[in-house]
Amino acid sequence: MAKIWQKSVTVNELVENFTVGLDREFDEQMAAFDVLGSLAHTRMLHSIGLMDAEDLQLCQQELKNIYKDIEAGNFSISPEVEDVHSQVEFLLTQRIGDAGKKIHSGRSRNDQVLVDLKLFFRHEIQQVVEETEKLFNLLIELSEKHKDVLLPGYTHLQVAMPSSFGLWFGAYAESLADDLEMVLAAYKITNKNPLGSAAGYGSSFPLNRTLTTQLLGFESLNYNVVYAQMGRGKTERVIAQALSSIAATLAKMAMDQALYLSQNFAFVSYPDTLTTGSSIMPHKKNPDVWEIMRGKCNRLQALPNDVAMMTTNLPSGYHRELQLLKELLFPAFTDLKNCLHMATFMLKHVTVNAGILNDPKYAYLFSVEEVNRMVLNGTPFRDAYKQVGAAIEKGEFNPDKTVNHTHEGSIGNLGNEQITASMNKVVKSFDFDKVKEAIDKLVS
Amino acid sequence: MAKIWQKSVTVNELVENFTVGLDREFDEQMAAFDVLGSLAHTRMLHSIGLMDAEDLQLCQQELKNIYKDIEAGNFSISPEVEDVHSQVEFLLTQRIGDAGKKIHSGRSRNDQVLVDLKLFFRHEIQQVVEETEKLFNLLIELSEKHKDVLLPGYTHLQVAMPSSFGLWFGAYAESLADDLEMVLAAYKITNKNPLGSAAGYGSSFPLNRTLTTQLLGFESLNYNVVYAQMGRGKTERVIAQALSSIAATLAKMAMDQALYLSQNFAFVSYPDTLTTGSSIMPHKKNPDVWEIMRGKCNRLQALPNDVAMMTTNLPSGYHRELQLLKELLFPAFTDLKNCLHMATFMLKHVTVNAGILNDPKYAYLFSVEEVNRMVLNGTPFRDAYKQVGAAIEKGEFNPDKTVNHTHEGSIGNLGNEQITASMNKVVKSFDFDKVKEAIDKLVS
Amino acid sequence: MAKIWQKSVTVNELVENFTVGLDREFDEQMAAFDVLGSLAHTRMLHSIGLMDAEDLQLCQQELKNIYKDIEAGNFSISPEVEDVHSQVEFLLTQRIGDAGKKIHSGRSRNDQVLVDLKLFFRHEIQQVVEETEKLFNLLIELSEKHKDVLLPGYTHLQVAMPSSFGLWFGAYAESLADDLEMVLAAYKITNKNPLGSAAGYGSSFPLNRTLTTQLLGFESLNYNVVYAQMGRGKTERVIAQALSSIAATLAKMAMDQALYLSQNFAFVSYPDTLTTGSSIMPHKKNPDVWEIMRGKCNRLQALPNDVAMMTTNLPSGYHRELQLLKELLFPAFTDLKNCLHMATFMLKHVTVNAGILNDPKYAYLFSVEEVNRMVLNGTPFRDAYKQVGAAIEKGEFNPDKTVNHTHEGSIGNLGNEQITASMNKVVKSFDFDKVKEAIDKLVS
Amino acid sequence: MAKIWQKSVTVNELVENFTVGLDREFDEQMAAFDVLGSLAHTRMLHSIGLMDAEDLQLCQQELKNIYKDIEAGNFSISPEVEDVHSQVEFLLTQRIGDAGKKIHSGRSRNDQVLVDLKLFFRHEIQQVVEETEKLFNLLIELSEKHKDVLLPGYTHLQVAMPSSFGLWFGAYAESLADDLEMVLAAYKITNKNPLGSAAGYGSSFPLNRTLTTQLLGFESLNYNVVYAQMGRGKTERVIAQALSSIAATLAKMAMDQALYLSQNFAFVSYPDTLTTGSSIMPHKKNPDVWEIMRGKCNRLQALPNDVAMMTTNLPSGYHRELQLLKELLFPAFTDLKNCLHMATFMLKHVTVNAGILNDPKYAYLFSVEEVNRMVLNGTPFRDAYKQVGAAIEKGEFNPDKTVNHTHEGSIGNLGNEQITASMNKVVKSFDFDKVKEAIDKLVS
Repeated sequence: MAKIWQKSVTVNELVENFTVGLDREFDEQMAAFDVLGSLAHTRMLHSIGLMDAEDLQLCQQELKNIYKDIEAGNFSISPEVEDVHSQVEFLLTQRIGDAGKKIHSGRSRNDQVLVDLKLFFRHEIQQVVEETEKLFNLLIELSEKHKDVLLPGYTHLQVAMPSSFGLWFGAYAESLADDLEMVLAAYKITNKNPLGSAAGYGSSFPLNRTLTTQLLGFESLNYNVVYAQMGRGKTERVIAQALSSIAATLAKMAMDQALYLSQNFAFVSYPDTLTTGSSIMPHKKNPDVWEIMRGKCNRLQALPNDVAMMTTNLPSGYHRELQLLKELLFPAFTDLKNCLHMATFMLKHVTVNAGILNDPKYAYLFSVEEVNRMVLNGTPFRDAYKQVGAAIEKGEFNPDKTVNHTHEGSIGNLGNEQITASMNKVVKSFDFDKVKEAIDKLVS
Repeated sequence: MAKIWQKSVTVNELVENFTVGLDREFDEQMAAFDVLGSLAHTRMLHSIGLMDAEDLQLCQQELKNIYKDIEAGNFSISPEVEDVHSQVEFLLTQRIGDAGKKIHSGRSRNDQVLVDLKLFFRHEIQQVVEETEKLFNLLIELSEKHKDVLLPGYTHLQVAMPSSFGLWFGAYAESLADDLEMVLAAYKITNKNPLGSAAGYGSSFPLNRTLTTQLLGFESLNYNVVYAQMGRGKTERVIAQALSSIAATLAKMAMDQALYLSQNFAFVSYPDTLTTGSSIMPHKKNPDVWEIMRGKCNRLQALPNDVAMMTTNLPSGYHRELQLLKELLFPAFTDLKNCLHMATFMLKHVTVNAGILNDPKYAYLFSVEEVNRMVLNGTPFRDAYKQVGAAIEKGEFNPDKTVNHTHEGSIGNLGNEQITASMNKVVKSFDFDKVKEAIDKLVS
Repeated sequence: MAKIWQKSVTVNELVENFTVGLDREFDEQMAAFDVLGSLAHTRMLHSIGLMDAEDLQLCQQELKNIYKDIEAGNFSISPEVEDVHSQVEFLLTQRIGDAGKKIHSGRSRNDQVLVDLKLFFRHEIQQVVEETEKLFNLLIELSEKHKDVLLPGYTHLQVAMPSSFGLWFGAYAESLADDLEMVLAAYKITNKNPLGSAAGYGSSFPLNRTLTTQLLGFESLNYNVVYAQMGRGKTERVIAQALSSIAATLAKMAMDQALYLSQNFAFVSYPDTLTTGSSIMPHKKNPDVWEIMRGKCNRLQALPNDVAMMTTNLPSGYHRELQLLKELLFPAFTDLKNCLHMATFMLKHVTVNAGILNDPKYAYLFSVEEVNRMVLNGTPFRDAYKQVGAAIEKGEFNPDKTVNHTHEGSIGNLGNEQITASMNKVVKSFDFDKVKEAIDKLVS
Repeated sequence: MAKIWQKSVTVNELVENFTVGLDREFDEQMAAFDVLGSLAHTRMLHSIGLMDAEDLQLCQQELKNIYKDIEAGNFSISPEVEDVHSQVEFLLTQRIGDAGKKIHSGRSRNDQVLVDLKLFFRHEIQQVVEETEKLFNLLIELSEKHKDVLLPGYTHLQVAMPSSFGLWFGAYAESLADDLEMVLAAYKITNKNPLGSAAGYGSSFPLNRTLTTQLLGFESLNYNVVYAQMGRGKTERVIAQALSSIAATLAKMAMDQALYLSQNFAFVSYPDTLTTGSSIMPHKKNPDVWEIMRGKCNRLQALPNDVAMMTTNLPSGYHRELQLLKELLFPAFTDLKNCLHMATFMLKHVTVNAGILNDPKYAYLFSVEEVNRMVLNGTPFRDAYKQVGAAIEKGEFNPDKTVNHTHEGSIGNLGNEQITASMNKVVKSFDFDKVKEAIDKLVS
């Protein structure tokens, strides 16, 4: 297998297969970002006199071509090539000769992978945020649309108080807004430049790390080179935690939906094409999408622990198994984006059942309401409480089923505007535009 | 056992013991915060006409007295009282009569616990941040002090490149600064007011939740009342994730220290009073503190998973086991604060061994340095590489052991100022002053 | 603090407090087992000539006295004493003088703790098995008693097929029988003697480990002394996995019960004294016990991961944090035993609701039954299927609601005898009698 | 997509893709086992009169052909076919017409998948046991071969006592023997027949489940049909726990090897072809295989938690996400088998360095040895202790570096025969021969 470093002896094939594993498969997803890193690195090398103008020009031109190929889907790692970095270099050298080999100066495989991963993760986080926003917007829309449809609120899975679809949809929207705070924190930790940390101990070349930071649109640097290397594993863990937060929200929503679709609740329904069933059990509307979503999201909830288990008690410095974290993180992004997309898709088709509270088993929902109403009308609390209790005991409790909640965040005053404002604020903090601008400039 | 709600039948004692569990023990830690919640709630009740001026005055006065008692350590939950909320109310009613019972209006046990927990967590997070800052400052100080003391840098646990204590200490400082980003996100999610959400479905009283938000110094509200209730479990999970981030940093530091103290590394030493050993094995300096810290921090790394396991697949709405999360979170704060404190304590006494790199087994550390030096002096890379390789092969490699790294974050240019600036920025974002101001006002 | 080993310098108090932690609290639970270990060890020392007959006699007599004191609840670790081992030795030396000090020969603190833990765990496992059997027996009894009470069976939380309480109770019984296979495996791994492994590298004394193995009723030895030490952490992990298996069964049962108590299912009920509620919401029967059980059992499901996180990537040999595993395992046994006890207690009082399937929403349960009935009566499957489908579509489906399942493990043929036989077989494999016999002999 | 059940409406394509996911990919691994299930099921159908002799003969013949095709690698699931079950049925019907469709009677997709999974897991467990045995045998062989090569034993990562490679290799062998106890428990739970449980509630057909149990070589049945369905998720969890036990042993071994290969220990070495490095850093022998193994095994240590997180709090009955567990378990078997294989491969080539203890930093290893030697020669312990302590303090400690440990499991008496006997006993308990016999009979 072609490697950039080469020792005289050949690595045993079993060893090679075992250690490379699925690496190349995941590496293809990082190809565009590897090229971005090289575009910035070569410009920096030129700026400090380690690459002449002609070589820079050749490298830039051809790297941009490769970038376009990748964007167009015309890139793959040849079976005999070890990884994406070698593949890009191979193409470069094939096309522009020795100039292509000079892109190694002042860079180690370690910081090259680090920067590729950070650029890739940054990109994926942006997509997650965008999918989250879409779902958020739909939830707010549904909350407003169905704000007058009541459903029972449960505590201890016992019928407790009146709730509404306005509250139900809005709650998950607000949850997503908070989840993005965790995503933002992970993004900030991710969006710092590790390039120039070499093998984790820096370089004797007079690198200009501030320049590559700007060129790649990073918000800042991982200054300390030992810390930059520590970012491997840590970045993955904080991202996994952030993703798990969204996943926890979706999993709970999916559990609610699976219950609500059960004949024992019957609060919502979906078109037949979105559920599974059988012609002989026409009542069955299996909520497969919500179940698979619940499963995938619970898998994601366990992800941070997987990362921690693989990295805990490793002393500082690079260890080969850090590479395996790709196998955990890369599919996690895909899964979460799919789940967000499918939640949006399903909820676009949800039918909210009206008249749920007409079922007599929900009558007692209104007992607290009734007491409060009497209190507001001047009856002392204890008297009101006793009267309602007595009416219930005698079977004479006929509650007024209108609900008149007015405070912030209640059935009659959902606060969706304020929730939307929170969401917009956190989304804006990501400052994706700045990144886009830098990357556009780099590849144009 | 005295309860605020009362049904005619008495709960079976086995059931009582099993379900209450250790709850009262943990509740004592929340006492001050329970009083704060009531101080705000009663003022709000008055503002909407649900408590008259006289009752308000009585309640405020006595709640403040109870608050002072708690602060002075003169508070405990009587064995026959169910929880902290009942104990506070019991004291209040004992002292001011019926006015004390009115603090229940428009509040459920659910949102009362929610707000207590949020205030408690907010307070604990502040202490964690403060302990983190102390350790950070010491690490930066040690990084500067020992910036010229070299040690081997490892990759794959193999001797790889020169590193330094400047880098080692500074790396952990920078790691803590990033960890605080996660803590900040958890803090933002925590620092929102759930009071007024009642049992998770709001109230028919015309509560003014914006007012209690201001009085309690919260940054904002959990608007949607269903979402406010969902915060139980979610708040704990995101906090656990944030704490786990600091814990991961400490655990890695502890692992490094345990290795560095081993006779096989011998990079650092400590006074005999801080290690354990035996007179017959005088060489033994067991790093018990670092080992216990590593263990406690790895325990904390597993904490978010514990929270997730206990809350996943629960449908929306309150479930009794959410109360058990106190048993996970409350000791976690204590443990992490102790670990931060002990790390600071130990590092204040660390001795960094000089001359480590004189050991011949570290000679090859400088091979890459030597190649780079030749390249910077004009030798083409391939030639430099071959020459160094040849010298090593012949056993004639006598490296110049000075290290001249100049780029950002390297041995000769640690970037501690920039790292400190990052730290200060994130610490400032917590805005603890605003909270202090609100609380001082509330209790004065 | 009094320690057995002593170096000239005193350990710093902060260090002492941090490293000792809660250790003494847990140690008290191990006291009886520490004495058992010493009873066996001294007899072995005598057998190899390292303790004379007189000293042996003194030690045996006094250790037995201490054992009785412990059994009678008259034992505690003094605040100035470090751990249980020191406390026992202190008492011994106080009473019989220098002979008491000789029990150290050929033993290290490491293997002393190892054997104490193994004896303690063995004892706790026995109690868990006994509590499991009680619950098992009740479940089988309830299965038989309610074998004719039908309830809906769900797939995807959708009403699917007829089930019965006979099946429901019996399923959890059979689950417990399988869980005990895991407990048995953990027991076998636990029930091997580590004594004599010293600090994990053996001893130059001619110890007779086979003798202590017999005296303590162990099934075998951890032969290899390095492996004996590795047992610390591993034993805890496999035990945690075994406990988590029972916990998973209980948690699922608790989830079912919480749902079945919901007004939306209403399959079971409990006396008012075993649930919580409020006089104003008389319908509310909060299943607090089941919820707390679910929470505690899910906590236990996360336990093996906690142990793994604290021990993974530790090289072979003792590390101080292994001591912290007591804080995880000791309460886990208590919690699981309580949960088993409470499950038994609750189910003794459960009322199973009859006539559940009269509710029209369950009519379609019988569609597959109807098709099968027709097939058994000679109608080709496709025709039967079409006819039933057509009847359903026309609203003319009036199923015969009798269920006639006859195969092994079905509603009409529960297989409880065979399940009980499996249970008895696994319980018998523990061979607790052999252990009891050895211990009785040792202390008499 | 071709499905066995069919409702009139077509499932939406997005829904289809999301819910099917990677299922077909994993299903191919189960193909042979699906055929085995059908071979047994059809024979049972004939025995109870639900399939006539001619159809049985056709089905048996063609199923055996398909089985041979699968064994020969000539089987794949067509893109338009939903899963392995549909593919097998499609082939069958294509070749033998309507008789092929009759294999559905008295079987649901649920119990068909259950039995396929159990047969597959049983097969994989056998392979894991075989690979474990190979590694075990090599470890015992190496332990014997290198029993006289001493190395330092560590406690707290501090040089503590003499150890040996005999102990080191033997310890991991004994660990594997214990790990197989957990695997055996998981195997017993797996090796019970769920076929006949239909959708988890049994069938009105007079199935003979005892017959299929015998035909498929299962040790027993999952009697209760509700419990049989509960096995989904539970089987996966206990298997994951069992695999994690072996993984923990391998991960610790890998950590030791990575340390021992470090220049700071230098206890072992490997041929250049089995490590990675660079010509310019000739000292570097990166232990990539051990690092990847450590990573993969730590991933496996987190696996049981992943399974638990995905299944906890699901009420009884089938849920669609249970299908996702294949994505966790199937690769886990492959990974663990590869790790076992690679550990064996590496250790076949390990070189154990002699003379390690000549390094002066290891002199104090012998202080306890020296004291014990004096005690055995008649010096009272305290005097011996003082004399050695004094010699060490004066720098006059010149230990005799021979080690004379004789007790069971010590350096001089490794106990490898007994350990091997334990291993053989547990391996024999699996009774793989009985399974082989049944399967051979079924397909011949």
